[in-house]
Amino acid sequence: MLSFENDYSRVAHPAVLDAVVRANEHLYSGYGSDELTAQAKDKIREACDCPDADVWFLVGGTQTNQVVIDTITPAYAGVVTVTSGHPNVHEAGAIEFSGHKVLTLPHHNGKMDANELDEFCKTFYADGNYEHMVFPGCVYVSQSTEYGTIYTKAELEALAKVAHQYDMPLFVDGARLGYALTATGSDLTLPDLARIADVFYIGGTKVGALFGEAVVFTKHNTPKHFLTQIKQHGALLAKGFVLGAQFDALFTDDLYFNIARNANIAADRIREALKSKGYQLTFEAPTNQIFVTLDQPTIDRLAQHVKLGFTEKADDTHTVMRICTSWATTDEEVNQLIELL
Amino acid sequence: MLSFENDYSRVAHPAVLDAVVRANEHLYSGYGSDELTAQAKDKIREACDCPDADVWFLVGGTQTNQVVIDTITPAYAGVVTVTSGHPNVHEAGAIEFSGHKVLTLPHHNGKMDANELDEFCKTFYADGNYEHMVFPGCVYVSQSTEYGTIYTKAELEALAKVAHQYDMPLFVDGARLGYALTATGSDLTLPDLARIADVFYIGGTKVGALFGEAVVFTKHNTPKHFLTQIKQHGALLAKGFVLGAQFDALFTDDLYFNIARNANIAADRIREALKSKGYQLTFEAPTNQIFVTLDQPTIDRLAQHVKLGFTEKADDTHTVMRICTSWATTDEEVNQLIELL
Amino acid sequence: MLSFENDYSRVAHPAVLDAVVRANEHLYSGYGSDELTAQAKDKIREACDCPDADVWFLVGGTQTNQVVIDTITPAYAGVVTVTSGHPNVHEAGAIEFSGHKVLTLPHHNGKMDANELDEFCKTFYADGNYEHMVFPGCVYVSQSTEYGTIYTKAELEALAKVAHQYDMPLFVDGARLGYALTATGSDLTLPDLARIADVFYIGGTKVGALFGEAVVFTKHNTPKHFLTQIKQHGALLAKGFVLGAQFDALFTDDLYFNIARNANIAADRIREALKSKGYQLTFEAPTNQIFVTLDQPTIDRLAQHVKLGFTEKADDTHTVMRICTSWATTDEEVNQLIELL
Amino acid sequence: MLSFENDYSRVAHPAVLDAVVRANEHLYSGYGSDELTAQAKDKIREACDCPDADVWFLVGGTQTNQVVIDTITPAYAGVVTVTSGHPNVHEAGAIEFSGHKVLTLPHHNGKMDANELDEFCKTFYADGNYEHMVFPGCVYVSQSTEYGTIYTKAELEALAKVAHQYDMPLFVDGARLGYALTATGSDLTLPDLARIADVFYIGGTKVGALFGEAVVFTKHNTPKHFLTQIKQHGALLAKGFVLGAQFDALFTDDLYFNIARNANIAADRIREALKSKGYQLTFEAPTNQIFVTLDQPTIDRLAQHVKLGFTEKADDTHTVMRICTSWATTDEEVNQLIELL
Repeated sequence: MLSFENDYSRVAHPAVLDAVVRANEHLYSGYGSDELTAQAKDKIREACDCPDADVWFLVGGTQTNQVVIDTITPAYAGVVTVTSGHPNVHEAGAIEFSGHKVLTLPHHNGKMDANELDEFCKTFYADGNYEHMVFPGCVYVSQSTEYGTIYTKAELEALAKVAHQYDMPLFVDGARLGYALTATGSDLTLPDLARIADVFYIGGTKVGALFGEAVVFTKHNTPKHFLTQIKQHGALLAKGFVLGAQFDALFTDDLYFNIARNANIAADRIREALKSKGYQLTFEAPTNQIFVTLDQPTIDRLAQHVKLGFTEKADDTHTVMRICTSWATTDEEVNQLIELL
Repeated sequence: MLSFENDYSRVAHPAVLDAVVRANEHLYSGYGSDELTAQAKDKIREACDCPDADVWFLVGGTQTNQVVIDTITPAYAGVVTVTSGHPNVHEAGAIEFSGHKVLTLPHHNGKMDANELDEFCKTFYADGNYEHMVFPGCVYVSQSTEYGTIYTKAELEALAKVAHQYDMPLFVDGARLGYALTATGSDLTLPDLARIADVFYIGGTKVGALFGEAVVFTKHNTPKHFLTQIKQHGALLAKGFVLGAQFDALFTDDLYFNIARNANIAADRIREALKSKGYQLTFEAPTNQIFVTLDQPTIDRLAQHVKLGFTEKADDTHTVMRICTSWATTDEEVNQLIELL
Repeated sequence: MLSFENDYSRVAHPAVLDAVVRANEHLYSGYGSDELTAQAKDKIREACDCPDADVWFLVGGTQTNQVVIDTITPAYAGVVTVTSGHPNVHEAGAIEFSGHKVLTLPHHNGKMDANELDEFCKTFYADGNYEHMVFPGCVYVSQSTEYGTIYTKAELEALAKVAHQYDMPLFVDGARLGYALTATGSDLTLPDLARIADVFYIGGTKVGALFGEAVVFTKHNTPKHFLTQIKQHGALLAKGFVLGAQFDALFTDDLYFNIARNANIAADRIREALKSKGYQLTFEAPTNQIFVTLDQPTIDRLAQHVKLGFTEKADDTHTVMRICTSWATTDEEVNQLIELL
Repeated sequence: MLSFENDYSRVAHPAVLDAVVRANEHLYSGYGSDELTAQAKDKIREACDCPDADVWFLVGGTQTNQVVIDTITPAYAGVVTVTSGHPNVHEAGAIEFSGHKVLTLPHHNGKMDANELDEFCKTFYADGNYEHMVFPGCVYVSQSTEYGTIYTKAELEALAKVAHQYDMPLFVDGARLGYALTATGSDLTLPDLARIADVFYIGGTKVGALFGEAVVFTKHNTPKHFLTQIKQHGALLAKGFVLGAQFDALFTDDLYFNIARNANIAADRIREALKSKGYQLTFEAPTNQIFVTLDQPTIDRLAQHVKLGFTEKADDTHTVMRICTSWATTDEEVNQLIELL
């Protein structure tokens, strides 16, 4: 059966897997202290045009959000996200588990508005009782967002500016960063992001790796004894070199970007077909996630041939479904899907 | 200067203070294991008409919310409150500090709607991804609410019914319970509350005590080793008998209710005066907290003679201020305030 | 029945209680922002000869240990105590509840040895795997200790020196500080302590107050947004002025020290009687806690007339019991006890 | 350079890696809901002779200890381990991070003694102040232990008996379970373990997998909503099928045991050589970890040719070093090492 369920349903891009297989010929020391990991970090620093960046590899997205947010947010503070933000909705309370409140702003097609962030902070500090409240301590956005939309360079710069004004680091979740940076119309580059964000991560799990997220601290701002804090969160991988091997491959010859672009091209074709067939796109978004609001008969009809993802009930008779392409999506699969629509 | 700033600006009702002074003639064993505490618990059980109730004394409101919510909510779950709920806004993240998310519903004059609670839970369990989300684990409401409004018996029963349907205990924060139960028009009694809620507390701090909140578990549902859990939260008072002495006094000859009623009578008089003078009450509420939306000149004028509480900005030129009476408010003070209005 | 069970079995010293009663004539603003609290802080600063000290009032000892240790210890670190330390044994895991490990050294009559602390830290940093371990993050000792013993000025200075060498603050739990400072043979003064320790507290609960501990940060080192962090731990008292009134009284005319000295004088008399009657003191200690190792018949005989405290089993036939005097112990009570021995 | 540094310095056993590569031909649904994972679980249930076992796959050892201990231990309780236990020493405080104290017993060559466990619990419940202390809530041991030693079946049964007597589950960390079960002289089988322990895990990371630990709940005792709790701890792998593929391979044709046995055979040869050459083994242990106490010249000499692991300083002139074989150790490597000794 055809599947456009998500972008993490295949093991890994062959070149990544091959790099892991080849690494099996060697012995490496543990916990990321090996040379392959060092080499991968160098390549990422170079791709970011940020020679001083401090790079760390973690295993998964929720884990990365938990470790980063917990370690960059003061004890008396919370993380500011939009209501649709992954840590607010789909991380089973991992942020609160580590002691921090998730403070929410409304989302606009999944995105945070810099003015609203400013207003939120201004209101907070103007409140006579603010010492009895959770301080805004860091800002979390994701690129691309939960709804597949992307921030422009100017939008991210505006967010960073407001965040810094209130003494907060800007953290960009890049679980799907590859898809965001290679989307049609994106004006943001990896070096831009490294310049703007205080910390971000380059998602591997959803962009060709077996697993793995590369966290980049861009401003000499790695939390103290970060390795110990990773371990404390249960997030330190013994065989760090398996992460190193994968990111080394992903950042060789622009593989990461090339395979990400493929997903967007596939998604663009599907979007075009949807529009031409009169479907209602829930969000205007240029990346690998397409949200369509479907009625139940259509859902039932499609479900016989293709797996899609459930997002949420739109109303009593409609549901928002997600069509998700990935680095692995083939032209053939796209053709089949379009035929079914 | 006149003050209607809050209901915790005097030490204690003279009879309560006197009970503490008298207790100084005796020796008591520690941590609430004394006979005075036992006697106070008996009187509360009787007032609740709930002979099996398990009663515990804690020191303050945020502490009580933290201890109770943390110990009755499963690890994988959060507490459901309205957006204006005290634990969501004014407890500095005490709930998240103990690992739980605060899940929010819209408030209606500070109150939770049972249908919206039902809808929230139904939507949660209908979500294909709910295992990745924070479960609704207990329901928190306060009586009276943050805006001085009160639930009717039927409203609380409806909330309890929905809560139990989804396997959640209903927890009622009674920091101002005395004011709620003695409000004009209230149809709820303490025995009603003990029958409806799974756990609630009778606030002492704001109703005549130096400090202290009496937590009542009504359904043989005290969390296991609760004393140890109180201690673990740093909330166990060495001299438990100081709490016992106070609640013994408050629950002798209906003192708790009599002094609470006084605050409502004072508030009713002020409300009447406000209305007759054309002020805009922010909320229709029958208890000791009066919220008025004032323009800046009025705020400035009043501030010269009386301390009021800041609640929130209403718009660019108006602010919601709180006039708060208490068990200690005198007729004279009310007269003075009315003259100033 | 006679009781030497503990030093927190009476409400409060009459002068303290009187100060609370007198405070009832006024209105105060909440959360410690009142002038009575400010005045009490000034008196403590003066008594400490530390004009820059930052003083905060909390309610109880375990609470204070939890709040202070959690807020001064980095996330990747634990608190170093001796095995017999209160946070390690008798706080129901309050430190671990807030996320920190308690790292233990052997005790010597309840005391920590500076050389052993140095050795512990040296070994830690020499361990090739120390990044996988909990860092020593602050040092906790109590004055007096769990066994009634006291540190000399030189011993505390040695501990502070080692602590600072490894970038750790020295935190001194003074739940029974009054008894320690006024013990026969003590060479430590409050200004000494303020000079040596980075943070300490002056215990009120066990030395004449209804409740309350005065935390003193001596080196411009109050944790950021400390009031918010206190609130987050559920430890912020609404009626802070009740704490202010008490400490104002305790630090007027040396009351705190005068009443503490009384307990030591009583204890000295009891110790002398015990020795002359051939009892075995478990520890040589000069403060208000006397530990004696008793056989079961003696325990049973005494239990008919006087309440003592259980400490621990010494062996199959002997038990360590505690005789505890307090600011409230009378000559008459001491006489009665001596007669019983 | 030769390396006997640890048992996690190679990517994976070729058959395991091959299984992962083959899985790349298919699409799988996420979070362990796929059929490959289901099949792996079936094989583990069968190998355990425990048809009702509930099997879960996690990524690493510390993570597994954190998730399991936190979810099986009541909030008011801690985990009992020996002082040398991994969660007590080498997990950077991951247990305390999740709110629980680690309660320690002395170790005997890395092992816990059932009588001492009984004595500890008996003393706890006999303590008049036990409600102010951390309850013993679960028992953690590892098989093999930190020092390479193993429990006999009778020893584990004795521990389980005591644990259950005090209402605690017995949790066995099997990060190196393969090496323990196939050690010369071991009388314990996987079905024995499944019968005795309440929960245990089968370590993959150190026995042939890229990563992964298979947690087995043997007595219908999986914590409620365990998937949600895994996610909350940041421990849920998106591509669960990568774990499924690996354990499916490891539990096909006894691969797990066969490759583990190889490490023990290599270790046995090295041990024999060490003894015959007069080296001092620090512990008598039959598994893949050999601890030898070496003087500095020997350490320096060996360090030129082979990487060993640092364990701890033995005294001023001696150090305990670890020689660690693995599933990947070749006869050739063993020969080379023996020659160097």
